[in-house]
Amino acid sequence: MAKSRYEYVKEFEQDRILLPNTFIVIRIDGKSFHKFSKDYNFIKPNDLRALKLANAAAINVKRSIKDVILAFGESDEYSFILKPDTQLFNRRESKLISTFVSIFTGNYIALWSKFFPDSPLNLNNLPSFDCRAVAYPNLSILKDYILWRFVDTHINNLYNTTFWTLVEKGGLTTQEAETRLKGTLASDKNEILFKEFGINYNEEPEIFKKGSLIYKDEILHIDVFKKIDELLKNYE
Amino acid sequence: MAKSRYEYVKEFEQDRILLPNTFIVIRIDGKSFHKFSKDYNFIKPNDLRALKLANAAAINVKRSIKDVILAFGESDEYSFILKPDTQLFNRRESKLISTFVSIFTGNYIALWSKFFPDSPLNLNNLPSFDCRAVAYPNLSILKDYILWRFVDTHINNLYNTTFWTLVEKGGLTTQEAETRLKGTLASDKNEILFKEFGINYNEEPEIFKKGSLIYKDEILHIDVFKKIDELLKNYE
Amino acid sequence: MAKSRYEYVKEFEQDRILLPNTFIVIRIDGKSFHKFSKDYNFIKPNDLRALKLANAAAINVKRSIKDVILAFGESDEYSFILKPDTQLFNRRESKLISTFVSIFTGNYIALWSKFFPDSPLNLNNLPSFDCRAVAYPNLSILKDYILWRFVDTHINNLYNTTFWTLVEKGGLTTQEAETRLKGTLASDKNEILFKEFGINYNEEPEIFKKGSLIYKDEILHIDVFKKIDELLKNYE
Amino acid sequence: MAKSRYEYVKEFEQDRILLPNTFIVIRIDGKSFHKFSKDYNFIKPNDLRALKLANAAAINVKRSIKDVILAFGESDEYSFILKPDTQLFNRRESKLISTFVSIFTGNYIALWSKFFPDSPLNLNNLPSFDCRAVAYPNLSILKDYILWRFVDTHINNLYNTTFWTLVEKGGLTTQEAETRLKGTLASDKNEILFKEFGINYNEEPEIFKKGSLIYKDEILHIDVFKKIDELLKNYE
Repeated sequence: MAKSRYEYVKEFEQDRILLPNTFIVIRIDGKSFHKFSKDYNFIKPNDLRALKLANAAAINVKRSIKDVILAFGESDEYSFILKPDTQLFNRRESKLISTFVSIFTGNYIALWSKFFPDSPLNLNNLPSFDCRAVAYPNLSILKDYILWRFVDTHINNLYNTTFWTLVEKGGLTTQEAETRLKGTLASDKNEILFKEFGINYNEEPEIFKKGSLIYKDEILHIDVFKKIDELLKNYE
Repeated sequence: MAKSRYEYVKEFEQDRILLPNTFIVIRIDGKSFHKFSKDYNFIKPNDLRALKLANAAAINVKRSIKDVILAFGESDEYSFILKPDTQLFNRRESKLISTFVSIFTGNYIALWSKFFPDSPLNLNNLPSFDCRAVAYPNLSILKDYILWRFVDTHINNLYNTTFWTLVEKGGLTTQEAETRLKGTLASDKNEILFKEFGINYNEEPEIFKKGSLIYKDEILHIDVFKKIDELLKNYE
Repeated sequence: MAKSRYEYVKEFEQDRILLPNTFIVIRIDGKSFHKFSKDYNFIKPNDLRALKLANAAAINVKRSIKDVILAFGESDEYSFILKPDTQLFNRRESKLISTFVSIFTGNYIALWSKFFPDSPLNLNNLPSFDCRAVAYPNLSILKDYILWRFVDTHINNLYNTTFWTLVEKGGLTTQEAETRLKGTLASDKNEILFKEFGINYNEEPEIFKKGSLIYKDEILHIDVFKKIDELLKNYE
Repeated sequence: MAKSRYEYVKEFEQDRILLPNTFIVIRIDGKSFHKFSKDYNFIKPNDLRALKLANAAAINVKRSIKDVILAFGESDEYSFILKPDTQLFNRRESKLISTFVSIFTGNYIALWSKFFPDSPLNLNNLPSFDCRAVAYPNLSILKDYILWRFVDTHINNLYNTTFWTLVEKGGLTTQEAETRLKGTLASDKNEILFKEFGINYNEEPEIFKKGSLIYKDEILHIDVFKKIDELLKNYE
């Protein structure tokens, strides 16, 4: 078809290419999920339905995009790792980011009613996500990325579990719970849970404590420290 | 909360900032919509339901993001123009791209059943979109961008209208129709439509011929050439 | 000639293109010139030889690179402005930066002995420069860039003139002079110069007070505020 | 000192940071050296003076910049490799590029008369260089980069040696020599040199055949294939 004389505006497009032979991590994050989770009465500190919904959406992302070798999710975020030699979209950052977040969002919304049958989505209050891509030059740093998110899951979950126990079972205000936890170590929080509320943190569900790792179409809730070397041994 | 020793992996994040004081255009494009529109039996050459669905999703994007001054849609694509002094997400490209495409996708899917009540979405075949951001340094070039998309709407629609008329009313195969139209001018296509099929192209629906322009929460199907100066006069 | 199997390493090269239709400013800065100017006994606060040497180098840069429309220098820095439609090196940032700084450095060193006939360059202590490129989207902001450097020239020169007068004629230590000037306004500094040392700042050489502006192969020391509109009127 | 109201123009500066934990290669290239080498009567195909001048300049670059672990030069180009954990200029691309090329150019010009005592530099015809930076994610690819330049040295030198022998000793025009060499293999060129001119290519000077590798302040002309693993063993 004919080209118009306005075609020149394409010259202003500037694609950024992610450095070849690096691991690409695509991380999707819930937008204003603090408010969103309140509006839809997510259970605190963890809502199993929401975690399973995110996992289902992430599994579908992985199915659509073959070059994903691993994904890790917790709370309202999900990280997808692409193999280092991927040529997907010629490694163009904007194509990668937008495609991942679009597929994830679409699935999250389309699958919503399956996981929240009693809370239909309000058309004026839909979930949305942002996304970024990061290039990691080698396997050792990539593993540290995954461990970063894994450790973060643990830190956040222990904190949130203790915080909401203090609030919901201990009768503290959120402000008081925050003050109480300031400066506490992991061991302190474990003790509060156990001594004051009879909760053994170790017996909390694995999906809360360990996040969700997608590997070969399976969702695992495992100690990532122990398994990461084995899972990624093909990329040594 | 405590920071882990893995936190250093954040240093690999590299944000691209779109040049200040430029018009930012965010263009969203349907992914593999050729196949998608076949799978859901979109009417050829234009499916009014699909255009109205895209418009409804775009209106909601514009409502969520105040700095959009104008949007233009045609076929399976939509362009959103941000005011040049926007500080949205500090003009970070990945945040802008991902947020727009996520909100658009979410609305497209959540609103689907309203526009396609008889074709429920198949969970294994959801629509998705990609997205890019471009910075345009001045109003004159920005107008050329919008005219580029407007002229493209005209060129594509005249072609597609003639093509599908030849196929559906003229009994040609798609291959024959393509051959027939090779090298034809706009006037030739108008003549084919009129002389052979009694179709006056000028009487085709405006939304098909002119695309959809969103301005102050209204959807217009207008001659962009005539109106663009007035619509953007605040940005001189 | 044959290509080797190592050729693939070229794929890691990532060129950044400066946004089309923007004014490109290339700013060159002396590296560690505080020390360098001491080592070569530059006269304080301004060494006329050094300023003239920089001007001579800059004139030669402008002669080599036709798309420069204006240049402005002060102290150990020089800014070169390229016309907005320049296609020089396809607007590749690294080519632009490296070529400008290489030509400038080369001329500065090759011309040194003409301006410093009594201070031959020590091969172990050569001047060097760094360089950056910035894109400005319109003429109004470009003018502000030039005014920024012009105002900076004034602020620095008034400060330095007063500072070194206090030290060299007033007998203060550099520490004492710094303390004395802390928080002073322009009017205070003018008064110190006039009342304590009989120096009328207005009578200082124009090259010190106004910097050097290169326009059409001429070096001007002028009030940039008054002339900028006229000098750049072709780019409205 | 006071900030002016023009200071905002700094917000348009956009630094590109080279990805952390990658090897940075800075490659400097002579600008229009085809013409420059003719103007100064460089000996064809290799001018020992020019190669030694470039080596001397490169040694001084390496002395000024501690994080260079290796440099390789041939013809009018030089590559400097920085250690992967360098924080030099916070890995800012424009600072790196401009500083390297400025120091190299300065030394090349300041040292010129030592290597070309009979050809003083003409102020209207100074050598200049451009420069680029490339990030390589791992040692294996970095080695391929160095081998790429090494193989290039060999290919170019064998070609040029044969070409100029055909011209200068064989009496061919440059056009005829080009035609003669079209499609020839390395073995063909070796044979032309040996059979027609009695030249054993293996006996050509090592600096011509192997380029110059700078390692720990020494200049080596060695088989890079054999030595590269050992030279870089600290970066495994």
